[in-house]
Amino acid sequence: MSQIINQQVRLRSRPNGIPTAENFEITTSPLASLQPSQVLVRNHFLSVEPAMRGWVSSAANYSEPVPIGGVMRSLASGQIIESNHADFQTGEYVTGMFGWQQYAVVDAEQIQRKITPTDFSLSTSLGVLGINGMTAYFCLLEVGQPKAGDTVVVSTAAGAVGSCAGQIAKIKGCYTVGITGSAEKVKLCRDIYQYDKVVNYKSDSFHQDLADACPNGVDVYFDNTAGEITDAVLRHINVGARIALCGTASIGNWDPIPLGPRVERQVLVNRARMQGFLIFDYRDRYNQALDALNSWLAADLIQFREDILLGIEQAPGAIAGLYRGENHGKRLIQLV
Amino acid sequence: MSQIINQQVRLRSRPNGIPTAENFEITTSPLASLQPSQVLVRNHFLSVEPAMRGWVSSAANYSEPVPIGGVMRSLASGQIIESNHADFQTGEYVTGMFGWQQYAVVDAEQIQRKITPTDFSLSTSLGVLGINGMTAYFCLLEVGQPKAGDTVVVSTAAGAVGSCAGQIAKIKGCYTVGITGSAEKVKLCRDIYQYDKVVNYKSDSFHQDLADACPNGVDVYFDNTAGEITDAVLRHINVGARIALCGTASIGNWDPIPLGPRVERQVLVNRARMQGFLIFDYRDRYNQALDALNSWLAADLIQFREDILLGIEQAPGAIAGLYRGENHGKRLIQLV
Repeated sequence: MSQIINQQVRLRSRPNGIPTAENFEITTSPLASLQPSQVLVRNHFLSVEPAMRGWVSSAANYSEPVPIGGVMRSLASGQIIESNHADFQTGEYVTGMFGWQQYAVVDAEQIQRKITPTDFSLSTSLGVLGINGMTAYFCLLEVGQPKAGDTVVVSTAAGAVGSCAGQIAKIKGCYTVGITGSAEKVKLCRDIYQYDKVVNYKSDSFHQDLADACPNGVDVYFDNTAGEITDAVLRHINVGARIALCGTASIGNWDPIPLGPRVERQVLVNRARMQGFLIFDYRDRYNQALDALNSWLAADLIQFREDILLGIEQAPGAIAGLYRGENHGKRLIQLV
Repeated sequence: MSQIINQQVRLRSRPNGIPTAENFEITTSPLASLQPSQVLVRNHFLSVEPAMRGWVSSAANYSEPVPIGGVMRSLASGQIIESNHADFQTGEYVTGMFGWQQYAVVDAEQIQRKITPTDFSLSTSLGVLGINGMTAYFCLLEVGQPKAGDTVVVSTAAGAVGSCAGQIAKIKGCYTVGITGSAEKVKLCRDIYQYDKVVNYKSDSFHQDLADACPNGVDVYFDNTAGEITDAVLRHINVGARIALCGTASIGNWDPIPLGPRVERQVLVNRARMQGFLIFDYRDRYNQALDALNSWLAADLIQFREDILLGIEQAPGAIAGLYRGENHGKRLIQLV
């Protein structure tokens, strides 16, 4: 296999805020030979996550930053084309932390799971049946703890995580309010993701629209944005509200930390709970989420959209596009 | 009893922020006669709480504001001097929501509990064996959920609530760090309340002192201040930290909401939990706290201080003094 030339997306420089195409470079090099117990995966799909902003930042975060010159960290799904590990066979499909590259030489612990022929399409292993769906599942149910009848507000309501969170809340009997940023996404949220109410945060009437959409206040806020959208939602929280902090998409740069209205009084007076979430804390329970998501997909209770860019050369600019909100659904890079 | 003249402290105007003496007036009027089932209490001690700022504010809060012209809402303790209720006898001591006045005509449901001769002094029913001690107990243990070995940071560490919270954390095997505002209070925190480390937030080296005092980060933050002290503590929180929001003493005015560094990223990245607390939510469990506090007092594991002002004419200015930090321990107005 030493004749295979591997294209890889490497981090060239650390962004000041949102990473753009200029922060990456695409390199080509011959593939290293496989060591004992290693597996060679040909990536079919690379994932593009808002969280990648944090993975390349040297600011406080939950993992070591990707080093300058290193292959961009990423979930990916592909097919095993060579294996030195007894548990993995050539031809099998797998998903895991394989990086932004055409081919990945991986150790077994980098493989999250196999994708079987009875599963949904391979690409879903990076979205609704991957990190996004599992994030929606655990963050909503464990941190948000919605009860039937609760008002659940979701920001980035049409996104890969948000759309799933809104639909799970609906399955649990909640009244769902989506916040999104374009007329097209408002329609998607209403028609496909079945939110009870949808508001556009770019509208001049956003604050009034939000108040009108939440006549009984807010019991659970699934927060993917932070920032001014969150400030607006916090004005409506009920006693005992749960604010699940899942992402901070609206804030381009946390160094220095931007200013906003202090939350302490509103949280105290309402005995509310604001709690951060990271999917990797739930790795021992992924199967629980996947079983539930699979059954809801099979029952047609969850809809999803994918936003697929073709070719590895699309990867470097793909994160910035997420922050501009240009994607409709889970953004992926398709290589094969 | 109709010849008794009652002095009462009434709300004259709504403060813009911290209530001062000018916001109150002292009136005198003959006592109303007792109706069936009512009890007449002669107040010995009136309580002064930081929370009173909220009780007179028309801004979002957890209770209806005291009306203009109304007697100031307050916990108080005193002796029954006349009773039309079978459960209460003349001569018994009681504590409850009796208001800032010399005499209170009360219904049975306003009485929180009787104080028996085997109890500690009557004044403690308003402090360490009253709302302050119970607040420390439930807010620390239920919201903060400290484990042995945790680093627990307490703001207003020398105050009536803070000093008790710090000592309960110590009883639970935690490493305790107190934040206070004068050399005298630093000494009190160190020598009497047995904090492991104490820092003065007014010192030029506060940020460094706090970092040095928390070499293993912060697991629980018992927050009585909000504001810049809280901003400083949040920089040191560990993964899974609990931030118990008990008071907002450092913020003079919440209308409009003051700006501060946004908390979302720090809370998210550390999967921390920030939660508001109100003692009145625990009213069905007060006895649990009182039993524990009584046993710790008897075992000399909890020390407390009282800051007693003499005469009802001290009441109107007493709240502002709390916010200036001039009290050492629980502030009370003694009438008898």
